[in-house]
Amino acid sequence: MSNKPSIPKGTRDFSPIEMARRNYIFDTIKKVYKKYGFQQIETPAMENLNTLIGTGGDESDTLIFKILNSGDYLKKADEKALNDKDSNGLTRSIAEKALHYDLTVPFARYVVQNQNDITFPFRRFQIQPVWRADRPQKGRYREFYQCDADIIGSNSLLNEVDLIKIIDDVFSELFQGKLNYKVSFNNRKILAGIAESFGVEERLEEMTVIIDKLDKIWIDGVVKELEKKSFSTEISLFIRELITNSNPFDLLKHKFINSEIGLKGIEELEYIRTTINQIGLINKNVIFDPTLARGLGYYTGTIIEVKVENFPSICGGGRYDDLTGKFGLKDVSGVGISFGADRIYDVLLDNNLYPKFEGDSTQVLFTNQTGNDEEVFLPMLFKLRDAGINAEIYPDEVKWKRQMNYASKKNIEYIVSSNFDGELFVKKSDNQDKIQFKTAEELITLIQK
Amino acid sequence: MSNKPSIPKGTRDFSPIEMARRNYIFDTIKKVYKKYGFQQIETPAMENLNTLIGTGGDESDTLIFKILNSGDYLKKADEKALNDKDSNGLTRSIAEKALHYDLTVPFARYVVQNQNDITFPFRRFQIQPVWRADRPQKGRYREFYQCDADIIGSNSLLNEVDLIKIIDDVFSELFQGKLNYKVSFNNRKILAGIAESFGVEERLEEMTVIIDKLDKIWIDGVVKELEKKSFSTEISLFIRELITNSNPFDLLKHKFINSEIGLKGIEELEYIRTTINQIGLINKNVIFDPTLARGLGYYTGTIIEVKVENFPSICGGGRYDDLTGKFGLKDVSGVGISFGADRIYDVLLDNNLYPKFEGDSTQVLFTNQTGNDEEVFLPMLFKLRDAGINAEIYPDEVKWKRQMNYASKKNIEYIVSSNFDGELFVKKSDNQDKIQFKTAEELITLIQK
Repeated sequence: MSNKPSIPKGTRDFSPIEMARRNYIFDTIKKVYKKYGFQQIETPAMENLNTLIGTGGDESDTLIFKILNSGDYLKKADEKALNDKDSNGLTRSIAEKALHYDLTVPFARYVVQNQNDITFPFRRFQIQPVWRADRPQKGRYREFYQCDADIIGSNSLLNEVDLIKIIDDVFSELFQGKLNYKVSFNNRKILAGIAESFGVEERLEEMTVIIDKLDKIWIDGVVKELEKKSFSTEISLFIRELITNSNPFDLLKHKFINSEIGLKGIEELEYIRTTINQIGLINKNVIFDPTLARGLGYYTGTIIEVKVENFPSICGGGRYDDLTGKFGLKDVSGVGISFGADRIYDVLLDNNLYPKFEGDSTQVLFTNQTGNDEEVFLPMLFKLRDAGINAEIYPDEVKWKRQMNYASKKNIEYIVSSNFDGELFVKKSDNQDKIQFKTAEELITLIQK
Repeated sequence: MSNKPSIPKGTRDFSPIEMARRNYIFDTIKKVYKKYGFQQIETPAMENLNTLIGTGGDESDTLIFKILNSGDYLKKADEKALNDKDSNGLTRSIAEKALHYDLTVPFARYVVQNQNDITFPFRRFQIQPVWRADRPQKGRYREFYQCDADIIGSNSLLNEVDLIKIIDDVFSELFQGKLNYKVSFNNRKILAGIAESFGVEERLEEMTVIIDKLDKIWIDGVVKELEKKSFSTEISLFIRELITNSNPFDLLKHKFINSEIGLKGIEELEYIRTTINQIGLINKNVIFDPTLARGLGYYTGTIIEVKVENFPSICGGGRYDDLTGKFGLKDVSGVGISFGADRIYDVLLDNNLYPKFEGDSTQVLFTNQTGNDEEVFLPMLFKLRDAGINAEIYPDEVKWKRQMNYASKKNIEYIVSSNFDGELFVKKSDNQDKIQFKTAEELITLIQK
């Protein structure tokens, strides 16, 4: 094989500068998570297929990358499926493992498996890649990172408040006040209350999925779809009113007179609204949006979503009441958020919001020219490194121009050289003047000042 | 499914304390790599199967986890293999992607694919999990982390010196002088010289594989195996002499009078030996071992291995002359090392060498007892976090004992409480005395002093 090599569709390599930017995002999120008492865990990339299948709905199942069993896998293959060439039917018998497609299901599995060692409420964060056999397109990858924080084993709405504040801390730091973002929150119980008030409780999920499209097809599209699916005109009118009304809380309260779940939703929302005001969260950034729906099936309480202009959601989350039930641990409530690192990456890049990553790369290059450089510079080089300065020597005696090109491409700030009289010089890349020095200690002082 | 969930054999979850320890290892290695001018990259977990197959020898191929194609994968399946139930023959037609089993092959692929954007010599590091369908056993996992650094595009032996010094820096820091480690180095050209001197050049790889077993089957075992494979008694005798001779350099020089490659190996080794002495590397830690072989096929020059007592190799590497040749880029020499993070993890644990990870977890817990706590403590909590202190409030008003149990399990240092008179107190977990305070600022001062 001597064709130019490539990588699978929807996957990416990350170059040094891309890594520096990504690490900046991860480190910022990680620092904030820790400040809020979250502890990091990691789960394997591979889970048993049984753990993943059937959690996120049928659509998710087809998005799961399955791993072929090792060895003579056809020996245990389902005979009938093999003869029928039934790919779907065959899969489970030849692929027992799969790559996780989110961090929520592995977390639920982890909690149940380690329930005797975990002290609840458990505040965990997890930053790992996930894999989805989605059709790749701009901004949608088959391998991408999620940065999740969840609190499991506590019903308190203080957890919601913490998570909203975390979102605000992270984006305050990443956007440095130069980019607006909107944190919307709602409660699934509001949607349940609407469904109940209009006598369509049993169609809640269907209704939620349609309302979830508001961003894409706007209110007219939603109304059209609601009517096409034979929801009553009253519902459509109410949704339309809800969007335009300046005081949706009152409108909902009035509507929920006979809906216990709706009123519970209002109560929860009001607690959150009051508390985030109390801790000084800027109101124009964090707003109640009664039509926020979020597609995922497992949410049962608060839902949260963060947007900036011209981008899809960059962070989202919510409360779920039974995520661990599938694995045999019932009635454990949790709430969590997930930052989409790849979209945040693009947002920062498009808005020119990355800091300079100077300390991250080499600071000092010792050039290699005169035949004596290696002997003179090597002990100095190691002294600089011991002093915590990122430094290197050009390993080969090649043309000056090539060494300078290397320094420039790597953004190296200081260039150290010698002349044939054995005099030593250091030059800052953005400055014409060479400064003469004699010892490593002098050089360190010059650089650190 | 309500059976207790599990994870695939040979994979692991990492709990918060395990993560703290792992991050400590990664961060130490990362810091040293950066000090030496290495830049981080990442490659996808999935590569095209074609990229991985046939690089590490046939044995490696069976160790590769293949990913089943998405959708109706049987549609493109090899008919004949399917009918013959030939698992091996079928694989390529139903699995085009696979998980990388090391970081070296993806790196070679990356270099070739991005050769026009890379400034050589390219010093890159890469810390990522790799996957191997190996039989799981103690200390051997199917998913584990490698921490690689390579310099590609430079023949200079200064690179070898840098890598040996990196090894010394990393283990000096991790072991804090409390544990001995041995850095052995050799050169594949020495082995080639031996083969040439005894007229068995064409059996070099076979001979190398046998000598590589010295650690496991000792010299008697090696001699037996050499003789079984019809290598001459002279070779066996020479190997035996080499091990026991106190001056193997002289022995080899004498032997290599007619072996150009052997003499080249000697020359390279002597340069490295002189230079690492010059920069003050402690000689008893870093030693020339003429029988060090290292199994991997692609090494052609220097080879390096690090050991501590009672453990298999914790770090290894070497120079390779044609890693990118497979992908169409010929004659590019590289040299690299790889730290085995999982083994280092065990070594540090067994020898009780981890520092305390205090700042890593929550420092302050606000208790939640009196009904007023939430209102009083919430604004303080956020002030503490703004001051960079990791803090949380217990989210539910539950029994004191349960809150204290939570604090103790999470190793939280400071407990903040109130009484029904509204007085506020902070108590250090290792101290009986409560200290009264009034404001968040007072509390911050108490904690930070």
